[in-house]
Parts: sequence; C-alpha cells; structure tokens
Amino acid sequence: MDTTVIQQDIAQADAVNALAEALGPKGLLRDHGDCDRYASDQSGLLGDRPVAVLRPASTEDVSRALAICSQYRIGVVPQGGRTGLSGGACSPQGAVVLSTERMSGVVEIDREAMTLTALAGTPLEAVQDAARAAGLDYPVDIGARGSATIGGTIATNAGGIRVLQHGMTRANVLGLEAVLADGSVVSRLGKTVKDNSGFDLKQLFIGSEGTLGVVTKAVLQLRRHVPQSALALFALPNHAAALACLAAARQRFGTRIRAFEGMWPDYWDFVCHETSLATAPIAGRHGFYLLIEVEAEAAETNEELEMFFAELFEQGLVEDGVLAKSLAEMQALWSVREAVGEVDDDFGHHVNFDIGVSPSDLGAFCDAADAVLATLPDALGVLKVGHVGDGNVHLLVAHNGSSAAEDQVEAAIYGLLREWQGAVTAEHGVGRIKSRWLGHCRSPEELALMRGLKAQMDPLGILNPSALFMPEDI
Amino acid sequence: MDTTVIQQDIAQADAVNALAEALGPKGLLRDHGDCDRYASDQSGLLGDRPVAVLRPASTEDVSRALAICSQYRIGVVPQGGRTGLSGGACSPQGAVVLSTERMSGVVEIDREAMTLTALAGTPLEAVQDAARAAGLDYPVDIGARGSATIGGTIATNAGGIRVLQHGMTRANVLGLEAVLADGSVVSRLGKTVKDNSGFDLKQLFIGSEGTLGVVTKAVLQLRRHVPQSALALFALPNHAAALACLAAARQRFGTRIRAFEGMWPDYWDFVCHETSLATAPIAGRHGFYLLIEVEAEAAETNEELEMFFAELFEQGLVEDGVLAKSLAEMQALWSVREAVGEVDDDFGHHVNFDIGVSPSDLGAFCDAADAVLATLPDALGVLKVGHVGDGNVHLLVAHNGSSAAEDQVEAAIYGLLREWQGAVTAEHGVGRIKSRWLGHCRSPEELALMRGLKAQMDPLGILNPSALFMPEDI
Repeated sequence: MDTTVIQQDIAQADAVNALAEALGPKGLLRDHGDCDRYASDQSGLLGDRPVAVLRPASTEDVSRALAICSQYRIGVVPQGGRTGLSGGACSPQGAVVLSTERMSGVVEIDREAMTLTALAGTPLEAVQDAARAAGLDYPVDIGARGSATIGGTIATNAGGIRVLQHGMTRANVLGLEAVLADGSVVSRLGKTVKDNSGFDLKQLFIGSEGTLGVVTKAVLQLRRHVPQSALALFALPNHAAALACLAAARQRFGTRIRAFEGMWPDYWDFVCHETSLATAPIAGRHGFYLLIEVEAEAAETNEELEMFFAELFEQGLVEDGVLAKSLAEMQALWSVREAVGEVDDDFGHHVNFDIGVSPSDLGAFCDAADAVLATLPDALGVLKVGHVGDGNVHLLVAHNGSSAAEDQVEAAIYGLLREWQGAVTAEHGVGRIKSRWLGHCRSPEELALMRGLKAQMDPLGILNPSALFMPEDI
Repeated sequence: MDTTVIQQDIAQADAVNALAEALGPKGLLRDHGDCDRYASDQSGLLGDRPVAVLRPASTEDVSRALAICSQYRIGVVPQGGRTGLSGGACSPQGAVVLSTERMSGVVEIDREAMTLTALAGTPLEAVQDAARAAGLDYPVDIGARGSATIGGTIATNAGGIRVLQHGMTRANVLGLEAVLADGSVVSRLGKTVKDNSGFDLKQLFIGSEGTLGVVTKAVLQLRRHVPQSALALFALPNHAAALACLAAARQRFGTRIRAFEGMWPDYWDFVCHETSLATAPIAGRHGFYLLIEVEAEAAETNEELEMFFAELFEQGLVEDGVLAKSLAEMQALWSVREAVGEVDDDFGHHVNFDIGVSPSDLGAFCDAADAVLATLPDALGVLKVGHVGDGNVHLLVAHNGSSAAEDQVEAAIYGLLREWQGAVTAEHGVGRIKSRWLGHCRSPEELALMRGLKAQMDPLGILNPSALFMPEDI
C-alpha cells in the first residue's frame, strides 16, 4: 500500500466523519452489510460497496453533504429507487451513495393549478395515488412504479407507455429544486408552464442522470383523470401497416390514444409459443402485433375501436383483432406486452437495447438489425418489442454469454444506429453501460459541449462520477 | 477620440471586411440606411445602428460569421422577424446584427413521424401553412405569425393562445441545430420525443434569447389538424368563477380546450365602451369575461358548449354567455380579446407587463396589483387581459409618460411579483427591457448558475451582449 492510497483512505475517513456529523445518526450508514444493499441498481451491473450511504432528510442536509463531498473531493452517486436499467445508480470505487429515501412525501396538491409538489424520494406510485385521490392523474408510468422515485424518474427523464399521450417526464415537470456539487441550492418551484424569465435551469437536471445536480423537490403537472379506457390487440401484416394504423388512429382519436405498443413476431412467438410467459389472444401467424389503448371519454369507445378495426380490416391493414370486454381481458392483453419483463430466465444471456429512431424509420431499422444480426455467428436470437409511436424499440439479442459476443452484438447494433442517426438510449438512460457508445449518436461538438457543461457545474467531477461520461472524458 | 477608440474602430472595420469576404456580396449590408432597418424590434426600445447586418445563407455561413466575430470580439445580435416585445433583438452600440432572413424554407415534412423540418428564418405562418397542406398542424400561434420566424420563436420560447393545449414552443421542438459563439455547430435533428442519450442540449438554446447560440434549423412536432372548433364567450361574477369554469371545462373537454382566455372588466370596458376598439358581444357589467374555444371533434360540440353553459349557469358560475354560430361570429368574439394589440394609441403611455404566477394565484395577484396601483398617484389606469389556464396576465398600466412614473409602476408591480414568487415574463422574454428586474424572480443561486453557463458557452460574451443579463453581470 503506497502513501497515496493511505492518504486517500485518511481523507475518506475524514470525509465520512464530517458527513456523519452533518447528517446525524439516521443520516449515514457505514456498516458493510448496509452499504452493500446500495451498491447496485437493476441493470445487472455490480457496483462497488460505497464508502458510506448518505440518507439526508432535507434539502439542507443534501446541501451540507455535497459541500463536504466537494471539500474532500469524494464522488457521490445519487440514488432513488435503484430501479434503473443502465447502471446509473451503481457505485464506483471510493464513492458515497446519496439516497433520497428519507425525503419522501407529497407536500401539496393544488387542484386549481393542477399541480402536485413532492419530495425527491417519493415513490412514483405514491404520487400517482395521491393525484388520483384528488381526482387527477400523474401520467408518467413505468413498470417499476412501486420502487422508482420521483427524483429518479426526473434525473433519468423516465418514459414508459404513455409518452405518446403526455410526453416524457420532462414534459410533466413544472418546477424543480436541485442541489449543485458545491452545495448551493437552485430552486424554482413555480406552478406554471409559462415562464421565460431567463434560462430554464430545470432542463439541465432532468435526464442528466445526477451528473449535474441532485434533485430534491419537484412541482409536477397533473392531468385530468380519465378512469375508463378501451383496449384492443390487432394482428397486422407488417410494421408498415402499423404506421398506417397509427396515422389513422391519430386522426380518429387524437390525444386520446393512451398507448400504441408494437410487438414483432419474434417476440410474440417467444412469449406465447416458445415459452408460456403469455397466452396468445390471437391465433395464427402474423407479421406484426399492436396493442392500442384509447381513453374512453364516452361509453361508445369500445364501439369506436370496433369500427376502427372494421375500417382498417377493409383496407387490408389489419388481419385479425380482439377487443377487451372486461378488466380481466384488458389484463390478459397487456400481459403479452408486459411479458418482456420476464424473458430473462428463458432467453438466456442477452443484450437489452433501448434504441430510438425516427418513428418513420423504426420498421426499416428493425429489418436492418435482423439482417446484420443474421451475419453474426454468436448472435443467437432477437426479440423486438416497443413503442411504435415514439420510435423506440427494445431489441433483446441473445448471445453465447462471452464478453466477445456481447461486444460483437453491441458493435453491430450501435454501428447500424449510427447510420440511422438514432439514439443509443431512448428512455433507459446512458448510465454506466452505454457511455462507451454515446459517441455513436452524439457528435464531437455535442460531446464537447456536454463536457463543458459538466466542467462548469461540477468542476471537481464529484457528481455520479462513473455515469454518462467515459472516465477519460472528465 | 482616444487611441482605444481608434483601435476599436480599426478592429471593427477589419471584422466587417472579414465578414464581407466570408459571406459574399448578398451576405452583408453596411449601408447606413440598410443597417438602420435592423436596429430595433417591436418593443418600442430604439436600438443603435448595427455596424453591419450579416445575412448568412446557410449554417456554414453562420459558423464562419460567428468564428470571425469571436476572433474580433464583436457583439452579434441574432434576429428573426424582429417582432419581439422585450428588446431582445435591438442592437447595442458596436455590434453586428445576424439576420436569418436568407435561411428560410421548409426542408421536409415527415407524415409518419409527424414532423416538419425548417430553416430558422422560415416565418411561423409558412410553417403553419405547410403543416396544414399536409393535413397536419403546428400549434404554436402568436399574433405576429406572419413576420415572426421559427428561429425567433424557438430562441424566445414563444407562447401564445394555445399553450394550454400544446405547451410553449419548447414542447413542440424535437430536434435543433445551433451554432455556438466560437462557430462550432451543435446539431441534433432527431425526430423522436424519446432520446435520453446524454444531455438534452437543445433546451439550452430554446428560450435563452440568442445568448447561448444561434438557432439555424429545427425539427418540429406536428399535431393532428382539427379544422373545426366551437367558441363561446361567458360573463362571470369574478375570476374565482373562471377558475371553477376551467376545472369544469378540463373535466368535460380534456385536451380539446384550445383556448381559455380571460378579460378583466377594466380591459373589457376600455375596448368595448371607453373606445370603439371592439363591440361588446354581451351587455351589462360583469366581474370577468372568458373566451373558450374547444376543438370540435364531433358535430355536437356547439351543443356541448351550450350544455356546459347551462350547467355553469345553474351553479351561479356564469351570468351570461354567447356562442358563435358562424365564422363571422367567431371572429367577432375573438376581436374583443385581440383588441389588446390596438390599445396603444388610446391608452397613452403605459407599461406592458407579461406576468406569470401560479394559475391558482392569478386572481389574487391581480387584486393585489389593483390595490398597489391605486396608491400610486402617477399610475393612471390598468387593463388586465390574459391566459387564465396558464397563470399569465398582460397587465397594461398607464402613467404620465415620465421615466420616474414608469420606474414607480415597474417597481410596484415587480415588487409584488417577488412576494408572489412569479415570473417577470411569462412569454415575451427578458430581452433588454426586463433584465434589471430578473433578480425579482430568480434567486442569487439561479442567477449565478445562469452566468456560469453563459461564461462557459460564450466566454467572450459576444452573443446578444445586451440581452437577458445586466451589463455588469457578464
């Protein structure tokens, strides 16, 4: 052990002592067993044991903690519910974790402004429930709603199945409070979408994965709650037909389309036939499957969907379809789409891509991906499922489990993506597992500006030091 | 004339020569008469004659021009249609103007992705027309649509009457290309709302009034075009009733509400009775007036509005109402609201405020503003008109024309705003005429971060040097 390492250890111990004093007995964990529980998220990447886990109870605590971390130049990994899929909440060596778990609660609901103010550590589902109890709706929804926190969904700009209707998390945040690396608090908790008084600073913290500041509080835009909806599953000849259906659905239902989810036959066959993860609600083989959910403003919406189907059928755009007649049938239809969360065991080693391209290019991109994967001996199969209207496909590619095969598959798909000018991640975030591919979709000028902003706002590089950027970048 | 000034003049002349060479004969104007036409916008503030007017024809031209301006440290005022109301496009002494007028045109419409790609200098109305010709809609709409450019609406994050339905300009931009102060081009012209591949850099350029970069091209999100709508004017007892009507309208019509505009009796009486700027569609005196436009998806929407009125009437929320039965009647109803653009001559010297507060606070804020103005001997009258659902009121306060009176009125209203934690500008922007009040709604920490971002992205301070920040700030 050389002198530098010893000095680092001493500095680390001093930092932890200072943090413990600032945050109080409930505010810091340093027991190894406790710390291990905060090392990783749900990406599959294993984080290192954090030096300590900070559990601030207030914005002031976060401010004090970050000021101390700056002073000792110790890395801080902000954590919400650790449900991320990109390793953005995994701890690197020598860092502390800052968990917002003690900063939980809905502070206020303003029915007239249709806003909800919540602390960063509030679970997404608690926000949704509080909104509904007030007769309103917070429309951001993801599978991890029970554990994911509002702060985490903001830091990662969470997407989900209702993006088509209400946008990403970014579109649903009106006000934000965040703490900068030096501990200064940047707070703007306004309740209006209309504010051109200087730079819209909240945009910097939304989706930057904790690399520019720690989100502590937010004012969210609520929407009208429409409890009823109609749901149908259509079988189509191909993805091109799905795009035509989307255009027709937009003309007919406008912003009432709540979800427009697509499944390629590889995915459908895997979950319905090759495994028993789901039961096929439609028989026979088809080229594409669509799950369409429409807000039911009127009792006639089921009939509207039936008429819509009849029209599309006449045009040859759909080959078969089934309409949910009960809540149980709705769940059955959704279960085919949601089975993607359960394929891991059966599908074996695989890369889970979260590709974004222009919605108009999605079908062609997937065809090209199929073609390039067919040339790779170590690519053992592909499942494709995604959000047709958003140009977002989750492409699961099985391989033999070697890191060489994983590299080969990633290089092939991200290489293709570069040609299509897409996004290496549409909704899951860059985190740690996609940072090396970021240059495949962002230009040197963009990356330079990103690095410049990071250097300006976090000059010591303490905020989520292993996320988003490559280590050599900062 | 001292040596420094002579050296500055020589540097300026060298800069203009270099710019002329880079941009070609059509790309630069230096005739005094020509330059004078580009000195000011529609704020009433008189800009200085620019040293030259740059008229780049391409992104590459903009890049070359900014690199030269950086080299010679000469200020650059980006200009679109010069329709701004805050002086953000007014030229300060010794600067050049960069007009995007030669960079005009719709590059592409992608019906499947529902996007339109346009050069920055394209007039807003040309974009709206192109979208409609494709059966789609670009929903950002402001009175200056004929002259305002897409680049200008993006740089100022333009609002308008349809913000309630489709958000500010920010919510309608998917991809953006901008040129930084040093001439580097930051381009991300993606067509999907879903992109979490690193920082969302476009947010920096939207609404920052040309202080961080020059917008050159954009991909806009189009919406379904709903040609029909129903329009009603309601008379109410007070603003509180308007908020109750808004909640009821949201429950009934959801996102079909296209406009929800409010007029206080001072405004109504002025345009309908004290002047002949408009004809009162409703007789008698009332405490508040609402203009409600709803997308007509079905032929029954007029009846729906009638039923809605009947319900509200029964609850005592509305006192009177009129429903437009023809396009001519729609225009007549709108003309009362739009008369705000014509009050200048009749109302005399006045300050035009563009206040933003929480929608739930709007009524109380306006009452407080009335009360504080009543105590000012030099405040000669007030008109209040605005966007009820957005918490945005345009407050016109007449005064005796002296700058002391103007200061007094501004200090009173912005002082009040500070207590209400509002925005000194909801949609018009800070420009030059509101920068001294920015500290009334942004904290020292926010202003420090804004200055840090400015210093990082435009270290020489050449981009729109007199806008948004106070001179001593940068």
